[in-house]
Amino acid sequence: MPFVEVGITLLVLTGSCFFVLGAYYQHNDFLYKLHRLIQEDPYAFYIREKLYDTLQLFNPNCLDQSDVSNSRMSQIMKYGFPGLDDIRVYSDFILSYDRRNRVAHWVYEHLRAPCVKNTGNGVTSHKANYQPDMSVPSNFRSVLTDYKNSGFDRGHLAAAGNHKCHQTHCNETFYLTNIAPQVGRGFNQDAWNNLEIYVRELTENYGSVYVCTGPMYKPKRQLQDVTEVRNTRTKNDKWCVEYEVIGENTVAVPTHFFKVITVESKLSGGSPYMEAYIMPNEPISRNANIRNFLADIREIEHIAGLQFFNGLRRSFFFGTNYTTTPEIYKNFA
Amino acid sequence: MPFVEVGITLLVLTGSCFFVLGAYYQHNDFLYKLHRLIQEDPYAFYIREKLYDTLQLFNPNCLDQSDVSNSRMSQIMKYGFPGLDDIRVYSDFILSYDRRNRVAHWVYEHLRAPCVKNTGNGVTSHKANYQPDMSVPSNFRSVLTDYKNSGFDRGHLAAAGNHKCHQTHCNETFYLTNIAPQVGRGFNQDAWNNLEIYVRELTENYGSVYVCTGPMYKPKRQLQDVTEVRNTRTKNDKWCVEYEVIGENTVAVPTHFFKVITVESKLSGGSPYMEAYIMPNEPISRNANIRNFLADIREIEHIAGLQFFNGLRRSFFFGTNYTTTPEIYKNFA
Repeated sequence: MPFVEVGITLLVLTGSCFFVLGAYYQHNDFLYKLHRLIQEDPYAFYIREKLYDTLQLFNPNCLDQSDVSNSRMSQIMKYGFPGLDDIRVYSDFILSYDRRNRVAHWVYEHLRAPCVKNTGNGVTSHKANYQPDMSVPSNFRSVLTDYKNSGFDRGHLAAAGNHKCHQTHCNETFYLTNIAPQVGRGFNQDAWNNLEIYVRELTENYGSVYVCTGPMYKPKRQLQDVTEVRNTRTKNDKWCVEYEVIGENTVAVPTHFFKVITVESKLSGGSPYMEAYIMPNEPISRNANIRNFLADIREIEHIAGLQFFNGLRRSFFFGTNYTTTPEIYKNFA
Repeated sequence: MPFVEVGITLLVLTGSCFFVLGAYYQHNDFLYKLHRLIQEDPYAFYIREKLYDTLQLFNPNCLDQSDVSNSRMSQIMKYGFPGLDDIRVYSDFILSYDRRNRVAHWVYEHLRAPCVKNTGNGVTSHKANYQPDMSVPSNFRSVLTDYKNSGFDRGHLAAAGNHKCHQTHCNETFYLTNIAPQVGRGFNQDAWNNLEIYVRELTENYGSVYVCTGPMYKPKRQLQDVTEVRNTRTKNDKWCVEYEVIGENTVAVPTHFFKVITVESKLSGGSPYMEAYIMPNEPISRNANIRNFLADIREIEHIAGLQFFNGLRRSFFFGTNYTTTPEIYKNFA
């Protein structure tokens, strides 16, 4: 009889152990697959906390640690999604595409010092060609003929010069999803270019810089027609949004462009430094200092309908709106 | 010795069985929790196929069957998401909010015959008040003062009269996320109202109707100033998007509104019937037949940047653009 009892106990013990083992195996298998999905799909990535919480998986911090090399997305999107419309993942930048305007809502890049300078690895924008992104449904896709003879440059949002580590990275910045109609002389080739160079300088100095770039369609006070005023209308503070659209696919010409720049501190535990710029899509005087275009990030959020640094308090950031570049350098390392 | 062998075999068998049982238990537990998440979160719902596929859960069709009463969302979104920007789930309609324009991109409703007529259950729009949706971040939220003295009506996208089954459903249509500035006389109170009444008639006749409603910002040929033409500009086919914005929160006044209507067949296995309307946000003659405003759904998609019936072939639908109402009735049951 004690022999049978021992046998039963052994069976029960084995059963319980293997039951737990089976559950544990399934749990880990699930976790692994979920991880992979979160690394590949931007919407799964966006709701990752909810997925972990609901499924009561003990939240694995390894996303930011071990698998990080697989998931450039989680690096680039470190400071949150400014918006959720049609998110598209490229190898070195992420963008949200505005299907109505045929121009991105925002493009997020994570710049690192080695990739913003010429290192003789042969990566060059001369090998790259502007091309439509065929993964965008045809009725929302901008194509080369939309820009042809429009009078506007095909302006990069994620600059080609920021992605010099691999030819693929550079090539991908030439997809028309990353392109917007920009005034050429005085803007794309001048003031805007200077801002891009400034961002690369910051990257060389501090090593790791996050940039979010996008278009704006800014309301302006309507110039009232004299005849119209004479007749019926009396309201004289009417505000309107007005922008040109070019080509058969009616690609919007933004009135302004913004950049939100986050510079990470070299000190471990140091707060990042943040600043924001708004530039009008028009010829800008050669003598204009880019710091004249420093802007309040809340203005960008309000006009573009985006939300930056979701979940992080603004006070988390080191500071903003220094009037001169040396001031930043003095206060921030 | 055979006794020991039998014992070991028994142990191995028990172990294996309980291992599988444990895995199975964990699998089901996950599935149940995942289900719940998919029913609550619109983004989880959107990527549900990917979640099931990646996690290699045998795709449970019960979503549309057993749990359906819990998940009004899966019913309302039966024909897919037209877009993914800031999706908000209300108890009887779903919308995507345009944070830039402070007006929804689209609002999806599923109308059922018992809820579109007065049934004496006391549900009335007189008990409801227009109110801002406090779940929208303040810098993207439209408020009552934005509409005040603007000269525009607070026009419903999901009509209050479509949601008469519960007072809550009706009240929620008064959230300003579901409201857009509409021209009052000749539009909101007339032609647009007639279109809403027509949709309710369809619902009473056929039992189950899906409606997607939203604003459009349609490009138009720019009227060139004479002086401007005389001077430098030679292009005379410039197209522009232009719309007014009202109030402190710059709420956009759409140039047009659309409705995409899908009527389900009463016959089991019958194809749904689909038609689409575009109406300009301006006074429309009282005599105008609403069928004058029938539109090609592709035009709505192109201008609004939305995609309808994602994943369903257009040929799946019964037909569209009948010129008279009796024609539909004749051909469709």
